[in-house]
Amino acid sequence: MQETEISTLGEFGLIEHLTKGFDCKNSSTKKGVGDDCAVLHYGDRETLITTDLLLEGIHFDLTYVPLQHLGYKAIVVNLSDVVAMNGTPRQVTVSLGISKRFTLEHIEQLYAGMRMACVDYGVDLVGGDTSASMTGLIISVTCIGDAAKDDIVYRSGARDTDLVCVSGDLGAAYMGLQLLERERAASQGIKDFQPDFAGREYLLQRQLKPEARVDVLDELHQLGIRPTAMMDVSDGLSSELLHICKASGVGCRVYEDRIPIDYQTASMAEELNMNLVTAAMNGGEDYELLFTVPLTDHEKVSQMKTARLIGRITKPELGAYMVTRDDAELEIRAQGWNAFTQQ
Amino acid sequence: MQETEISTLGEFGLIEHLTKGFDCKNSSTKKGVGDDCAVLHYGDRETLITTDLLLEGIHFDLTYVPLQHLGYKAIVVNLSDVVAMNGTPRQVTVSLGISKRFTLEHIEQLYAGMRMACVDYGVDLVGGDTSASMTGLIISVTCIGDAAKDDIVYRSGARDTDLVCVSGDLGAAYMGLQLLERERAASQGIKDFQPDFAGREYLLQRQLKPEARVDVLDELHQLGIRPTAMMDVSDGLSSELLHICKASGVGCRVYEDRIPIDYQTASMAEELNMNLVTAAMNGGEDYELLFTVPLTDHEKVSQMKTARLIGRITKPELGAYMVTRDDAELEIRAQGWNAFTQQ
Repeated sequence: MQETEISTLGEFGLIEHLTKGFDCKNSSTKKGVGDDCAVLHYGDRETLITTDLLLEGIHFDLTYVPLQHLGYKAIVVNLSDVVAMNGTPRQVTVSLGISKRFTLEHIEQLYAGMRMACVDYGVDLVGGDTSASMTGLIISVTCIGDAAKDDIVYRSGARDTDLVCVSGDLGAAYMGLQLLERERAASQGIKDFQPDFAGREYLLQRQLKPEARVDVLDELHQLGIRPTAMMDVSDGLSSELLHICKASGVGCRVYEDRIPIDYQTASMAEELNMNLVTAAMNGGEDYELLFTVPLTDHEKVSQMKTARLIGRITKPELGAYMVTRDDAELEIRAQGWNAFTQQ
Repeated sequence: MQETEISTLGEFGLIEHLTKGFDCKNSSTKKGVGDDCAVLHYGDRETLITTDLLLEGIHFDLTYVPLQHLGYKAIVVNLSDVVAMNGTPRQVTVSLGISKRFTLEHIEQLYAGMRMACVDYGVDLVGGDTSASMTGLIISVTCIGDAAKDDIVYRSGARDTDLVCVSGDLGAAYMGLQLLERERAASQGIKDFQPDFAGREYLLQRQLKPEARVDVLDELHQLGIRPTAMMDVSDGLSSELLHICKASGVGCRVYEDRIPIDYQTASMAEELNMNLVTAAMNGGEDYELLFTVPLTDHEKVSQMKTARLIGRITKPELGAYMVTRDDAELEIRAQGWNAFTQQ
């Protein structure tokens, strides 16, 4: 591969080079990259803003994450936060800190993934900042989206007797990470090591190329369901359930036998001798949507292809519990991913 | 000083603790910290977005920058970009990457400075992300502001015969940095070293506590002047002049004897045997406003207390030159601060 030192372009040359292929398509984007600020116009609609910081060695490991996938994921995890408010992602800004280890070609790969995500989701890249870093790659993404005022779904809207639902399946991204780490450990000191991912492609895809569940919003819309509370599952179902319970001032019961788990996740957990339900409840990085709907939407929600019913909201004094297959009640605790204890 | 490990709070505890004192005051802030996104509403007005990444060892050195000042500056440099579009800053998001070296008390100091800037400028903190980092402190700030559509001033509006103006004075922040670095070097190996800053307080203030020039916008407004082009001077006057010339498709002449320089800047340059005009033209971090106005505003602009006339816009084929005191013409080159060559 060709290797071009980034310093040969300088900061402005680099930004110009990288943002060349990004055309702005949203009518709310009035001015993208190239001035002190981007200019947006949302009119009657509310503006949604979210931001995420991704750090090498903390949030990603480039020994097994291809830069293109990393770029895609860095965008998607931010879009997911806008989707989780029942909004439409429209713009992103991307700031990068780049150490000397990275060539222009590396950063082009990262941007290729970002561009793919922007195209897939119809989002405009409108600004950012690019700088050298002392060590490692630093990615800060801000996503801006919009929603009609009455369509926005907060975490705080869940009410007693509401139904609790989750889209897709859980734990696969976590199992994908375990698989990647196992193969990395196995590769140590072995030249031309070939990792063994046969039959685990879904787990890898879930870890390396997550998607924001716009399709779930579409289905909810088609069925005429308006969730009372919603958020995305980034830190694990347990952690997110507690967020909704706290913000809404309610309790919940979720049923172990209702937690959606893919076959590959289960098979991998068995192979690694890990507790499957723990992985599904606390794994994180699934970017599925956790939402609550009024009890009266029971029939509609039961028809959903993209999501399933996993429990119900209770009065706050009943706490937050998982009902196991043998009818025991286990208190839900946030064992979600905590960046500050992993150092 | 008390030392509390950040891991004792966890990510959510930390965010809750740090954002407690930040009340949202802008009517455009509908929902601040605490959900997947912040919710804003700008109605008929345009939304302005800008973002900056500040990295320890690249953009700041904690051996001589107090954390409180760093927090203040991290906010202000973003506000300055909104001001440079002739807009009003309204909200910020703050993402932090924090290495093990930092205690809760350190981060509280950083936030105290951020809070001071938010209060001074009437800006709401509406979101962010907090994470561990492998090494050093990482600060990513996004600022959101607004402006009426017709009030926004881009870099691209300068026209032949327009007048070129700059606010305040230039080169002082750069000289403040030289002073801090000199004293740091002098302190090496000396116990209880007392740096000598006597008579240089203005230089320190310009380096450590820059301000966004909202007062310049106010004066322009009072005098009924609408700039044709504007940006803030963050990378040095030379670099910014070239940005305006390129974006507007024009040339310029600025006059050496019109460049505003404070007495302390001149005295420090002499002491360090540095070229004063080079420092003023290329120093950077002044966060003054560089703007152009129609020739017909000559009289009005001459009355300004916060800014002065330094030159004029020409046809593009005449290039960008500084006219020296002895009437020579020096081509303006961007020698502004480039993070990629400083590694």
